[in-house]
Amino acid sequence: MVKVGIIGSTGYAGQELVRLLLGHKDAEIVWYGSRSYIDQSYASVYGNMFKLVDSKCLDDNMDELSSAADVIFTATPQGLCASLVNDEVLSKTKIIDLSADFRIKDVSVYEKWYGIEHKSPQYIKEAVYGLCEINRKDIPGARLIANPGCYTTCSILSLYPLVKERLIDVDTIVIDAKSGTSGAGRGAKVANLFCEVNESMKAYGVTTHRHTPEIEEQLGYAYEGKPLTLNFTPHLVPMNRGILVTAYAKLTKKADWDELRAAYEKYYKDEFFIRLLDKGVCPETRWVEGSNFTDINFVVDERTGRVVAMAALDNLVKGAAGQAVQNMNLVMGIDEKEGLTMPPLFP
Amino acid sequence: MVKVGIIGSTGYAGQELVRLLLGHKDAEIVWYGSRSYIDQSYASVYGNMFKLVDSKCLDDNMDELSSAADVIFTATPQGLCASLVNDEVLSKTKIIDLSADFRIKDVSVYEKWYGIEHKSPQYIKEAVYGLCEINRKDIPGARLIANPGCYTTCSILSLYPLVKERLIDVDTIVIDAKSGTSGAGRGAKVANLFCEVNESMKAYGVTTHRHTPEIEEQLGYAYEGKPLTLNFTPHLVPMNRGILVTAYAKLTKKADWDELRAAYEKYYKDEFFIRLLDKGVCPETRWVEGSNFTDINFVVDERTGRVVAMAALDNLVKGAAGQAVQNMNLVMGIDEKEGLTMPPLFP
Amino acid sequence: MVKVGIIGSTGYAGQELVRLLLGHKDAEIVWYGSRSYIDQSYASVYGNMFKLVDSKCLDDNMDELSSAADVIFTATPQGLCASLVNDEVLSKTKIIDLSADFRIKDVSVYEKWYGIEHKSPQYIKEAVYGLCEINRKDIPGARLIANPGCYTTCSILSLYPLVKERLIDVDTIVIDAKSGTSGAGRGAKVANLFCEVNESMKAYGVTTHRHTPEIEEQLGYAYEGKPLTLNFTPHLVPMNRGILVTAYAKLTKKADWDELRAAYEKYYKDEFFIRLLDKGVCPETRWVEGSNFTDINFVVDERTGRVVAMAALDNLVKGAAGQAVQNMNLVMGIDEKEGLTMPPLFP
Amino acid sequence: MVKVGIIGSTGYAGQELVRLLLGHKDAEIVWYGSRSYIDQSYASVYGNMFKLVDSKCLDDNMDELSSAADVIFTATPQGLCASLVNDEVLSKTKIIDLSADFRIKDVSVYEKWYGIEHKSPQYIKEAVYGLCEINRKDIPGARLIANPGCYTTCSILSLYPLVKERLIDVDTIVIDAKSGTSGAGRGAKVANLFCEVNESMKAYGVTTHRHTPEIEEQLGYAYEGKPLTLNFTPHLVPMNRGILVTAYAKLTKKADWDELRAAYEKYYKDEFFIRLLDKGVCPETRWVEGSNFTDINFVVDERTGRVVAMAALDNLVKGAAGQAVQNMNLVMGIDEKEGLTMPPLFP
Repeated sequence: MVKVGIIGSTGYAGQELVRLLLGHKDAEIVWYGSRSYIDQSYASVYGNMFKLVDSKCLDDNMDELSSAADVIFTATPQGLCASLVNDEVLSKTKIIDLSADFRIKDVSVYEKWYGIEHKSPQYIKEAVYGLCEINRKDIPGARLIANPGCYTTCSILSLYPLVKERLIDVDTIVIDAKSGTSGAGRGAKVANLFCEVNESMKAYGVTTHRHTPEIEEQLGYAYEGKPLTLNFTPHLVPMNRGILVTAYAKLTKKADWDELRAAYEKYYKDEFFIRLLDKGVCPETRWVEGSNFTDINFVVDERTGRVVAMAALDNLVKGAAGQAVQNMNLVMGIDEKEGLTMPPLFP
Repeated sequence: MVKVGIIGSTGYAGQELVRLLLGHKDAEIVWYGSRSYIDQSYASVYGNMFKLVDSKCLDDNMDELSSAADVIFTATPQGLCASLVNDEVLSKTKIIDLSADFRIKDVSVYEKWYGIEHKSPQYIKEAVYGLCEINRKDIPGARLIANPGCYTTCSILSLYPLVKERLIDVDTIVIDAKSGTSGAGRGAKVANLFCEVNESMKAYGVTTHRHTPEIEEQLGYAYEGKPLTLNFTPHLVPMNRGILVTAYAKLTKKADWDELRAAYEKYYKDEFFIRLLDKGVCPETRWVEGSNFTDINFVVDERTGRVVAMAALDNLVKGAAGQAVQNMNLVMGIDEKEGLTMPPLFP
Repeated sequence: MVKVGIIGSTGYAGQELVRLLLGHKDAEIVWYGSRSYIDQSYASVYGNMFKLVDSKCLDDNMDELSSAADVIFTATPQGLCASLVNDEVLSKTKIIDLSADFRIKDVSVYEKWYGIEHKSPQYIKEAVYGLCEINRKDIPGARLIANPGCYTTCSILSLYPLVKERLIDVDTIVIDAKSGTSGAGRGAKVANLFCEVNESMKAYGVTTHRHTPEIEEQLGYAYEGKPLTLNFTPHLVPMNRGILVTAYAKLTKKADWDELRAAYEKYYKDEFFIRLLDKGVCPETRWVEGSNFTDINFVVDERTGRVVAMAALDNLVKGAAGQAVQNMNLVMGIDEKEGLTMPPLFP
Repeated sequence: MVKVGIIGSTGYAGQELVRLLLGHKDAEIVWYGSRSYIDQSYASVYGNMFKLVDSKCLDDNMDELSSAADVIFTATPQGLCASLVNDEVLSKTKIIDLSADFRIKDVSVYEKWYGIEHKSPQYIKEAVYGLCEINRKDIPGARLIANPGCYTTCSILSLYPLVKERLIDVDTIVIDAKSGTSGAGRGAKVANLFCEVNESMKAYGVTTHRHTPEIEEQLGYAYEGKPLTLNFTPHLVPMNRGILVTAYAKLTKKADWDELRAAYEKYYKDEFFIRLLDKGVCPETRWVEGSNFTDINFVVDERTGRVVAMAALDNLVKGAAGQAVQNMNLVMGIDEKEGLTMPPLFP
């Protein structure tokens, strides 16, 4: 039984970790960390856990926690994980970081886009970028996993085979992404009140969203390590969960649906958590809600010579907690799918 | 492994049965019945099931189905189950009927409220009303289970201990119920379009809703078999899932919260699927979504001498498919909780 | 042209006043008061007002404001208006208070339910309770109007004719009310975040909501001034606007729909803002959104001897700003309907 | 007083025409056409109009209607208006067609994208494309107005100044558009049920949506009449009203925000219904709901050399009925803003 600690267990991603781990056969949560709710009953913060979780929320005590837990998930604001990690901690436990601290290999890029100093850049190189379908072989045995961002997971998975196979001109990539509101977190802000979000839609962080360099870096690796830039625009949608990505790029040559499909199958055909939809079917977030699936499809536009690639996932599952559990399974040598096979919940 | 057939598998309750049974260790779906989608792939009707269900939808062939299945769920319009049941069928398989056909013992009451003739009244007496927490002992071994309605489950559970213990005046009961829109089914009607339901609320079926006599009959049994009448008013709420009941009644004597709580605990304290909330906490549908829980609490109003009892459940789970699986487990001698222990999904 | 000042113009009710007054032929807003946004452009707080309102938000300066404005609306937290009113102010301007400070005639009842000391009880007697359809004759010329609460307007209007005509037993009244989330205000609270409210429903303030004594007092006046108590339960609904009231009471004698309808017509038949629906039609909040209408209907339940009365209004219009403008019109001798005749917005 | 007839008055756009025209000083509706609801009271179809509209729905009788009405709005499925228009009709009345029948000048393009034969191509040349801000001078006196599509209005207005001023490379245009569900109409389809749309998002009509050639044609005129092709992708969003367009294109030269803003101001600075937002402010559909405004802004991305242009409007107002009334005002010599100055409704 893997003993698990969660730092930041009262955010939406933290709570989703709890939900998933309660259904995991080989894991047990031993530490519900939450600076905001210290000593309060976890179930008083999340009423769905009433009678399912008896524990109280604990402060971050890294010494104690790293001894108690085989794996620590940090579902915390940027910068916190980097400030907690050290050799002693990493010698005692595994860390799966749901923040961005160890996702970007170039510390100057991180510091520029996030506007904070990185407190432990010495671990960046070691950290494995935990996009399981692409980096699976590097994950087992890693001490420090950088769990990918929600938008980035969806964006990268939608385009990876096309970039890898040189089917698209990487200078023409435009990624238009739409997210449910749980991605904005549980902080009390006017902008996220029900009446402000409901019945409305907007773009935000246009040209400046922090997931941009993460997408660029990872797609750059697929592009033989060459740097690339692209446009990424996130939007806020009046729904709880779900990310939909619509990505555009010029094809490098005339190609039909079957040829592009072959590229997707080359990389994804054995991936349980990636569902390549039938021709003509567009991904919809309702079909992945509550699950770890990413649904992918695309349309070739002969008129313009572009491909329109689409992907849908649940931002709290494959976009956060689900992928984190998938990483934990790989790190600890458990069946990768354990705890993650529930069908999507609809409606 | 219990072999399961579902008639009406493409309605919302039918699809929820599929979702739950896919996670059930001891059951296997062998028949996806759907008159509306015969020969179509089930996953084309419900995209969440893509790659999880390979089967096609089948017509209702009761002969074949009753031989193939150990248990048949009928998630169908009123009247259909009654027209399918006969001695041969019941000798070969168990039937768990999610429609109202066998819920009401007095066939004239059924025919009056539902406006249709009952096609097999001879089986009404035998049928067990499958409100597990109340009729658990009668369920194992039954051939025909009348799975309770969504509103009725929530209404009865909210008031049962108070009626049974004579703590409320049954002539003063008013039940004001609110339901998410999945309760209205998947039929293509203007009234259920997104733009008609969203941003609105209404009562419907005022004084005439068919769940009224079902609630009255069951609470009457709790009241030593004496008949009672009450007001039940359903409302449509712009959300997918969830029923909230707010029930009012005069107390028969001055009583405080602790005394009434003792009555609830007398009947529910060992019930896994009933969560009696802490004093001062009101049930909310978000805390039960996707789960088989019913959350219950109440407030005593000293000023008016009334109790306000509240209950929340997921209409598709405890209000339909979840309770149906719970009944199947009891009928087939499986652990009652099997397949039903997933925590509620939030947000 | 009536010069209008608004204290609390950046709350939802304050902003609705702005929306309505921009369309009012005889009124001009001269003061956008907002402690929270002093010196900020009003349109930066409410983007819908971009290019329509050029003003900045001002602090509360009662001296200056009472000289500048013919009418002041106070759309502020409880207690503030009571602390601002004095003889000098009332000698210079009219006050229409959207808070509860002057609604309840018995100051001890106010202080008990609101938990604060009343700072100017000497003006309570003078204040007119501005439920226009019932107290119209007292409003012209008044210096201080207590604008009714949203729930109370809907609750009182739904039952007033029945109480006045002694058609219901006032000891049996149960009012179950449901409100959109704008009623909770624009404060940044976790409980009102999109993801917390969306896809859920709950009761709150059960037996303790502050609109209870206001409803009781006003219905008591209709009941020849005799005190009465009742149950009032508010619920939070995942929609922006709208209140729906479902009220229950025993009839004092056997009566059919036509008899009760006659009572409603006796009081409401010439009321433009009250729409008595056709028999069999239930009020729905979507049909009143954005308008000053209250839609009313009822069902007689012969089985239980109860009437189920229903009413729907827009909590920000007839439940707050619209009624306040209606009061202003009456106070200032303008056509009562001016600025309030826009049809409801649907969908 | 302009006498107005509406064919298709019971669709969402038709009903919005009714709402707007009820508030129009110089217009009067004399004909509520609706094939689906002949002889039914209009207010029974749209409860918001109860007591505001007394009329019944009428069949399409073009002879009678063209004599009775000075202006006829056709808010009908594609093909119907083309089948009704003839010389006699056009000699007696003006037609403002909300369908696509007369929007596209090349009849073969129309017939290819819409898949139907055009029944009166002889009037296409005469028809004026009623995008008022761009074609205002051609509208007065026209007999036949092709009222632009909702997506097209938003798309064209967002990019027009940039194309006209040659600031963007027209070969790189990608338009990603998101719409509320009222755009899908009031037909009873499973795909538009509340539970199917709520809590989900999807693209549809990818590379094949019929608004594509309309956008291309109109932007082509701005581009000195040269043909251009682009990608247009519509998405369905779980909200009632609102369209948000996010459009991408390569800049033809290095340019900063101020230079591009100057281009927008060149064409829009005196346009009442176009609001150019302040730098850094993104359009949001909530700020235009219920109004005829289009809010526009953009961001220059120096990293990629692209501009991201954004626009928001209410699909039923500026995207349909509001623009139609604006056209009527221009055609009939009424103040262009009459009936259209209501502020946006929020929340």
